Amino acid sequence: MTMEVFERSEFLRCRRAMRGVRPLVQCLTNDVVQEMTANVLLAAGASPAMVVSPEESGDFARIAHAVLVNTGTPTPERIEGMRRAVESALSVHHPWVLDPVAAGILPWRNDVIRSFVERRPTIIRGNASEILALAGAGQGGCGVDSTDASDAALDPARRLATSTGSVVVVTGERDFVTDGQRTFVVEGGHPTATLVVGTGCSLSALVAAYAGALPDEPLTAAAAACFAAKRAAEAAAQISTRPGSFRTAYIDALFDGEDGHDL
Amino acid sequence: MTMEVFERSEFLRCRRAMRGVRPLVQCLTNDVVQEMTANVLLAAGASPAMVVSPEESGDFARIAHAVLVNTGTPTPERIEGMRRAVESALSVHHPWVLDPVAAGILPWRNDVIRSFVERRPTIIRGNASEILALAGAGQGGCGVDSTDASDAALDPARRLATSTGSVVVVTGERDFVTDGQRTFVVEGGHPTATLVVGTGCSLSALVAAYAGALPDEPLTAAAAACFAAKRAAEAAAQISTRPGSFRTAYIDALFDGEDGHDL
Amino acid sequence: MTMEVFERSEFLRCRRAMRGVRPLVQCLTNDVVQEMTANVLLAAGASPAMVVSPEESGDFARIAHAVLVNTGTPTPERIEGMRRAVESALSVHHPWVLDPVAAGILPWRNDVIRSFVERRPTIIRGNASEILALAGAGQGGCGVDSTDASDAALDPARRLATSTGSVVVVTGERDFVTDGQRTFVVEGGHPTATLVVGTGCSLSALVAAYAGALPDEPLTAAAAACFAAKRAAEAAAQISTRPGSFRTAYIDALFDGEDGHDL
Repeated sequence: MTMEVFERSEFLRCRRAMRGVRPLVQCLTNDVVQEMTANVLLAAGASPAMVVSPEESGDFARIAHAVLVNTGTPTPERIEGMRRAVESALSVHHPWVLDPVAAGILPWRNDVIRSFVERRPTIIRGNASEILALAGAGQGGCGVDSTDASDAALDPARRLATSTGSVVVVTGERDFVTDGQRTFVVEGGHPTATLVVGTGCSLSALVAAYAGALPDEPLTAAAAACFAAKRAAEAAAQISTRPGSFRTAYIDALFDGEDGHDL
Repeated sequence: MTMEVFERSEFLRCRRAMRGVRPLVQCLTNDVVQEMTANVLLAAGASPAMVVSPEESGDFARIAHAVLVNTGTPTPERIEGMRRAVESALSVHHPWVLDPVAAGILPWRNDVIRSFVERRPTIIRGNASEILALAGAGQGGCGVDSTDASDAALDPARRLATSTGSVVVVTGERDFVTDGQRTFVVEGGHPTATLVVGTGCSLSALVAAYAGALPDEPLTAAAAACFAAKRAAEAAAQISTRPGSFRTAYIDALFDGEDGHDL
Repeated sequence: MTMEVFERSEFLRCRRAMRGVRPLVQCLTNDVVQEMTANVLLAAGASPAMVVSPEESGDFARIAHAVLVNTGTPTPERIEGMRRAVESALSVHHPWVLDPVAAGILPWRNDVIRSFVERRPTIIRGNASEILALAGAGQGGCGVDSTDASDAALDPARRLATSTGSVVVVTGERDFVTDGQRTFVVEGGHPTATLVVGTGCSLSALVAAYAGALPDEPLTAAAAACFAAKRAAEAAAQISTRPGSFRTAYIDALFDGEDGHDL
């Protein structure tokens, strides 16, 4: 099967749409990346809301444009909050994104992730090890970092997309975005991004933001979010390849395009 | 009713007092802004302590100079921790600040917030949508961002202050600080602050720090904290109006005044 | 008893070993410093993983090179997650580090900390007030900041090391690392580090990283981590002594040494 390069003109169209909507993204994510996720969304032009308690997560998912579920630091209470948000999002046909952090390593978490995959996420975003694990083709990584190259996960990603009906995004040195039929490739970025916690998790939130603004185009929306992150990483690396400074520059770069700067 | 401009000389007096005490501020706040809140307090000259578990939050509130309760990511356990801290603070007559994040949107959270308002916070700090909701004059915002201008909340803020006995702070393009009789206005700041998560929540912590150092002057203390934040935002915007760099510069600016720099 | 200055050549040997292993460090730490801890480990050349839920923390501790337990924001559920991780680490003879945040102040937390000390941590890292409290020689600090100078804790640290079999690290203006017999001193650093939340907590994670890579040399490993932090603080202070900018520069400095830069 062939791959298509995701075009800059398509990205610009999607970003205009996203910033025009300023989507409200309900983030049920892990303990480590809460602030990074919120700042990435704010910089990019979306509005984050971390409404996570089971008492109210379902109510809020009816208001939000999109829901993010990230399994980085699950607890039974958090998972119940996620479930209610997912069911609400499904009931009102809003997109939701699954980030299956550390899929394939820990039995309990694998069960949790499998139960979310069964609810058919609009989009699944993971690294190669996680997507290989979900596709039944690998053993998972080691911790949160991928031990596999993204290219190795391309065919499993297509199979996973076909079997779930989800758009599947594999990020790594090259990003692949596939619905099982069409596959976009997004190249570029910078390896320093792997030394800053939350660049992957916050990309999943950005995928949710784009999908919330473009609910009928999840494939294109997901590719646009990957494109934004790759370009921002490149711009940040022009400023610094040391991780503290890179992090600041990465958020700055996601903001650009508003007023004279452009990606 | 008239408004008074909060004077720089008053701010400098309050800041000297706050830095002299180095108040210990017990922060029971949301998951997203924990680090930002701690760093803002440290930079400004206060000492943060996140003692949140019901098993010990009440004990610690007797030691702390002030307590902050922020309802951004409530859970039943967290709320119980907050309740015990509030009751302890009340029992020793220490100031406590309520930041009613997202008041007016979600039924369960509204009940939680209402129960805290009934315990008569020393100071309530919110955006216009939140204060309108508490005053029974609006529908609340959408997520954590205000959808109302701060001016629209001025009269409701005064009514809320009169009915609760709390000092009420509405922050936005202009900040209003009122006890129902006197009202201070604090102008300035910079819109980039709205693109950095936690600037509002950490301002509530700063309000608690000033109130902890000036327990007999909650109105003045709250206005001084708002003044500090407005000036720091302006100083940060001189460095950068991109949100990653602005965040760093904002914390730097809150620190200034110690050794040669001045706001 | 005499003290030995920890030598730069020893540090460089340890850092090469640590970066060669790229140790996976399971961090069970407090709410405030999650991101800082992850970014410090990534910058320094280790791999963080926050696997905290009791359902899976024990499984993961068998995979990780080292485990960090930090009592900054304990809850009963978190503590159970910590216990299971500690028991697993003990069962496979992997090092684990205890950071007894705020020891000596709160009765419930003191019991929690005591129960961890009884499980004989490989290394205990605290500020002077915390170590004095654990050694039964002080009243603890006030919140998370030490109210005692590190020198005052040196003898108590040696006694604590002898009675527990742990390496004990007291950090402050001077850091002491002792197993009760030998004691290393690490000097330098910069006071701005005390104005950035998480510099202490993330140092404990760095201690775990070095210990994970050098499991037979906990004394040397702990001293090497302290040395890295002191040098990074000095390098950061060359860039800025304002806390926002210092934080960024501190993480950058921990990264250095990889490619031309050197500490």
